[in-house]
Amino acid sequence: MADVNPVLVEVSRGEMIENQHRGAAAVVDSDGKVVAAWGDIDGPVYARSAIKPLQALALIETGAAEKFRLGDAEIALACASHSGEPAHVETVERWLTQIGLGPEDLECGAHLPLNENAAAELLRAGATPSALHNNCSGKHAGFLTTAVHLGEPTRGYTRAEHPVQQRLQQLLQEMSGAELTGAPCGMDGCGIPVIGMALRAIATAMAQLAGPTRLPPRRVAAAERVRQAMAAAPEMVAGNGRFCTEVMRHTGHNALIKIGAEGVFTAALPRRKLGVALKIDDGASRAAEVAIGALMLALGVIDRAAQMALSDQLEPPVHNRPGAVVGRIRSAPGWPGRIR
Amino acid sequence: MADVNPVLVEVSRGEMIENQHRGAAAVVDSDGKVVAAWGDIDGPVYARSAIKPLQALALIETGAAEKFRLGDAEIALACASHSGEPAHVETVERWLTQIGLGPEDLECGAHLPLNENAAAELLRAGATPSALHNNCSGKHAGFLTTAVHLGEPTRGYTRAEHPVQQRLQQLLQEMSGAELTGAPCGMDGCGIPVIGMALRAIATAMAQLAGPTRLPPRRVAAAERVRQAMAAAPEMVAGNGRFCTEVMRHTGHNALIKIGAEGVFTAALPRRKLGVALKIDDGASRAAEVAIGALMLALGVIDRAAQMALSDQLEPPVHNRPGAVVGRIRSAPGWPGRIR
Repeated sequence: MADVNPVLVEVSRGEMIENQHRGAAAVVDSDGKVVAAWGDIDGPVYARSAIKPLQALALIETGAAEKFRLGDAEIALACASHSGEPAHVETVERWLTQIGLGPEDLECGAHLPLNENAAAELLRAGATPSALHNNCSGKHAGFLTTAVHLGEPTRGYTRAEHPVQQRLQQLLQEMSGAELTGAPCGMDGCGIPVIGMALRAIATAMAQLAGPTRLPPRRVAAAERVRQAMAAAPEMVAGNGRFCTEVMRHTGHNALIKIGAEGVFTAALPRRKLGVALKIDDGASRAAEVAIGALMLALGVIDRAAQMALSDQLEPPVHNRPGAVVGRIRSAPGWPGRIR
Repeated sequence: MADVNPVLVEVSRGEMIENQHRGAAAVVDSDGKVVAAWGDIDGPVYARSAIKPLQALALIETGAAEKFRLGDAEIALACASHSGEPAHVETVERWLTQIGLGPEDLECGAHLPLNENAAAELLRAGATPSALHNNCSGKHAGFLTTAVHLGEPTRGYTRAEHPVQQRLQQLLQEMSGAELTGAPCGMDGCGIPVIGMALRAIATAMAQLAGPTRLPPRRVAAAERVRQAMAAAPEMVAGNGRFCTEVMRHTGHNALIKIGAEGVFTAALPRRKLGVALKIDDGASRAAEVAIGALMLALGVIDRAAQMALSDQLEPPVHNRPGAVVGRIRSAPGWPGRIR
């Protein structure tokens, strides 16, 4: 049983704990040193959308973003799992027009907006969702922008052998210092390849995004641009009411955070020059959110005022249908404790 | 670490396991003997909606169901977490009229139908969901029916001190043989009390539902009526495409199963006179479904033909947005193994 990850998050209901979420987490500094760790940080994890901020580096450092004069909104959307609110959808649509393409060039598939009101509005209007509403459409627009800029084919940009994906794998290797050839692979929800990476490696890459120490100047500049865009347009990274957006509205440049499907979360903490990566064993987003919040509190990047304002994000109430608060989602007693 | 429950279910993506779900399960016979068990079956668990078939016994044995000439559809709905399809909503509405009440008497709160098409239809029509669409509206209609029949107040029937809820607690004690006074309490998603019960006790109660050995004749008859209604109207217990419904369409009288929120599942297996109860630690429904399916296979209540027909329920594929199968949800290697 030595390989069982610890309980990071608990869900209470009334007088008892109804659910437990186990997981692993790594905090790494910009020298690549593990500052704190819980559970197995060396086994492979699919980072899913939690590494979109790293993938967005390619959009910047190739010169594609500058060529098409992308602003904070577009770059933040390249890092986003957006809610499909009108602002998200319209910005991606306009962006695709700027590069001479359209929604039909997106290979991410369609789904209803994650934002309930946006989804209901769409249904009320008798419409059906398009690839623009897919939470990954900004990332895919970024991929297409890079391909167009470099004169690569746009069709098939989601395939592992396409230059866009090859570039991303190379970039992940360089940022994390991990060798990814031969790592376990799969396919992401939006059709691109996913590669199994250790949490230690993901956190190392996020630490380089937060405070580069061993990147070439062009990538240092790209990292700064990504940080700046996420801090300037947090509403584009997720959406109103969503964890990433609400937290970044309070942390600004101090903490850039990104959720991934199946219980992954990353953070780049520029002021502390730290990277964080965590994975909930069972894939629960509710636990990943509470866990990253607890780590940010322990690392001092959420101040007292922000903690008060974010109480419903950091320790979310569980509501029942008639509207009563019947429980709460909290970090496990004693976890994560003091860090350094 | 002795108290860590085993991994019951795994979720693969591409070349590796992306998620693990731990949990506990108990199989108990109608003598109250534990036939098989995994993990902690003595700690308290909220059974949530998984014990609706037990709660429905009160509706029958008080004579309320007979008085109002309820059929299989209504009794199955009393045991249901229904999808809010038109057939569910209309049946509950008609039923409430039969007892002289209406939707406004339901205290369960409203939510959009669980069935995506039904939800989209409702939104397209510019409507908002009512308490009739709540997946628990059939159970609540049953509570109201019992109260009306016995001349009890209908308002406040969800409160712990109301005779309806007192009767249910008494019934659960009698069926399970467990003392529930002093057990940890909370509030369910639909506003009624939930009581922490051991999986052993829940499975014991389900075994009595499956094959009564120590119940008074009136309750034996009620158990038979509940079993008969669930087997006759499985589409009312959940809905089209839902796990409980699709599985019971194949198992008929051999296996009556019921999911509960936060990863609980129960089964009453009349032919084998067994009761089953399981709880996934993290509360994931996807894991609870696969786990109960694996137990039913191991117990021989899903035959080869049904196993083929139910392959997408028993080992669900994970799809991505563009439509590819990118993984699968399966019981953990070697689990549950042979039982007896």
